[in-house]
Amino acid sequence: MNEATTWPFEVGPLDVRDYECDLQGVVNNAVYLNYLEHARHRCLIDLGLDFADLHESGCDLVVTRAEVDYRQPLRSGDQFLVRTRVGRSGKIRFAFDQIILRAADERLMVEARIVGTGILDTDKGRRPGLPQQLQDKLDEADQTSGG
Amino acid sequence: MNEATTWPFEVGPLDVRDYECDLQGVVNNAVYLNYLEHARHRCLIDLGLDFADLHESGCDLVVTRAEVDYRQPLRSGDQFLVRTRVGRSGKIRFAFDQIILRAADERLMVEARIVGTGILDTDKGRRPGLPQQLQDKLDEADQTSGG
Amino acid sequence: MNEATTWPFEVGPLDVRDYECDLQGVVNNAVYLNYLEHARHRCLIDLGLDFADLHESGCDLVVTRAEVDYRQPLRSGDQFLVRTRVGRSGKIRFAFDQIILRAADERLMVEARIVGTGILDTDKGRRPGLPQQLQDKLDEADQTSGG
Amino acid sequence: MNEATTWPFEVGPLDVRDYECDLQGVVNNAVYLNYLEHARHRCLIDLGLDFADLHESGCDLVVTRAEVDYRQPLRSGDQFLVRTRVGRSGKIRFAFDQIILRAADERLMVEARIVGTGILDTDKGRRPGLPQQLQDKLDEADQTSGG
Repeated sequence: MNEATTWPFEVGPLDVRDYECDLQGVVNNAVYLNYLEHARHRCLIDLGLDFADLHESGCDLVVTRAEVDYRQPLRSGDQFLVRTRVGRSGKIRFAFDQIILRAADERLMVEARIVGTGILDTDKGRRPGLPQQLQDKLDEADQTSGG
Repeated sequence: MNEATTWPFEVGPLDVRDYECDLQGVVNNAVYLNYLEHARHRCLIDLGLDFADLHESGCDLVVTRAEVDYRQPLRSGDQFLVRTRVGRSGKIRFAFDQIILRAADERLMVEARIVGTGILDTDKGRRPGLPQQLQDKLDEADQTSGG
Repeated sequence: MNEATTWPFEVGPLDVRDYECDLQGVVNNAVYLNYLEHARHRCLIDLGLDFADLHESGCDLVVTRAEVDYRQPLRSGDQFLVRTRVGRSGKIRFAFDQIILRAADERLMVEARIVGTGILDTDKGRRPGLPQQLQDKLDEADQTSGG
Repeated sequence: MNEATTWPFEVGPLDVRDYECDLQGVVNNAVYLNYLEHARHRCLIDLGLDFADLHESGCDLVVTRAEVDYRQPLRSGDQFLVRTRVGRSGKIRFAFDQIILRAADERLMVEARIVGTGILDTDKGRRPGLPQQLQDKLDEADQTSGG
């Protein structure tokens, strides 16, 4: 991931909760997906889009691919930050780049790329696609973070 | 993934549990990581290795990278299978290829590659590596599925 | 709980999954609520009622009170059974008595009483109540399990 | 629960995370147990006791009984507070009274009483009991909260 990457959205510091740790005493690998999703949904809200409202209105945002690199494990007692950047990935997909840092020293714990799309009601049934509202926001975000 | 891939290990059919579904009515993306982990740990037991026992004996198996392609969502009421194949990935890593199928029609729902390593007690502190016991099993598995 | 209690519904044996264990190496207290819910929903399906379908048709079954006695902890490698009995609890509530047993020796691990109701669409908005369909089943179940 | 109850410990406001909501669109009943546990462990840390450290030192704190009254459901987008009070319950048990409030209007969503004990290494093997350290804190807490 480019050193110069900017991270327009940050969530945290959040506490690791003890029930999120497994019998090795570290946060379970699936739980980071929870953290990442929570940060994406907060990021969407900052963009004016609400995951639950979108569902109610007939548009489901879904993950189509997740790539997650686990660098170091979070542990009981740790706090963490999730930094997020969103952009388009082709015509009908969005891509989130996300990192999870330990709050105390901003050490990189997890790096992820999450790609997704929307599932929309159309004349031909439910089809993949991005709602106009989200396309606009993604185009805007691309420009803002714009490099 | 190669059509000819054989899958020496299968877990299931297992029920989707309703608490695993999110407000869209589909299994949440992080939950598939739970399914995959459960199948890996069952696969290890078939190989004579127990995740919890390994931890007790000072060897923690950890995931270092997950790549997950979400093809179709599982829903409330579905049953599923997890098929798993394990091999080496370089000197100190193992790699699991895994697929999740809907049991009713064996439709492919999720495809994943999970790479990991062991963290071992050594003279120089805790270091990444594969315990001999696991190396032997992986070499054996490579040959069995071999070919 | 009465020794003579009969348990018309049983789910299992199910595997404890390692991600369900916390840093103490035992199944986390909240996870048993997951197990119990899964067993209740399977029990409802045996009665001809589907939790997800009920939601789609405008009736949400909700838990209003849970009492859970934790006798012994399940651990990594254990299998378990969940036995369930359902009856009415007053005019608009149902009550599930449930036990979780370790499969290997049928040792009692958890005992629970879960009370709930339905939330229905009515002329006056959404109100607590039991859908006729469920009332019929509960009355039937009461008679079958034979008082 | 007594109107005059004081709540010496508060956690929050915390966000409901969308993955914590089930297909009814409300926080799943088991998830509140997660919230309550997290608040108890934070409360213990305020008392100078760390759940993970206690485990490392051979003392496991365990829940023996949970009573939970679900008044109203939390939903996607809600924030909540958890208020907690701890005291002794007999010679070898502690009891937490806890409430979960929606942050926006401090409406009562969940009320709970969680009883537990410690499991200690003793000459006769592992036995239930409260470590001296926790007993002291509980006696202190009882006096502080002034009952």
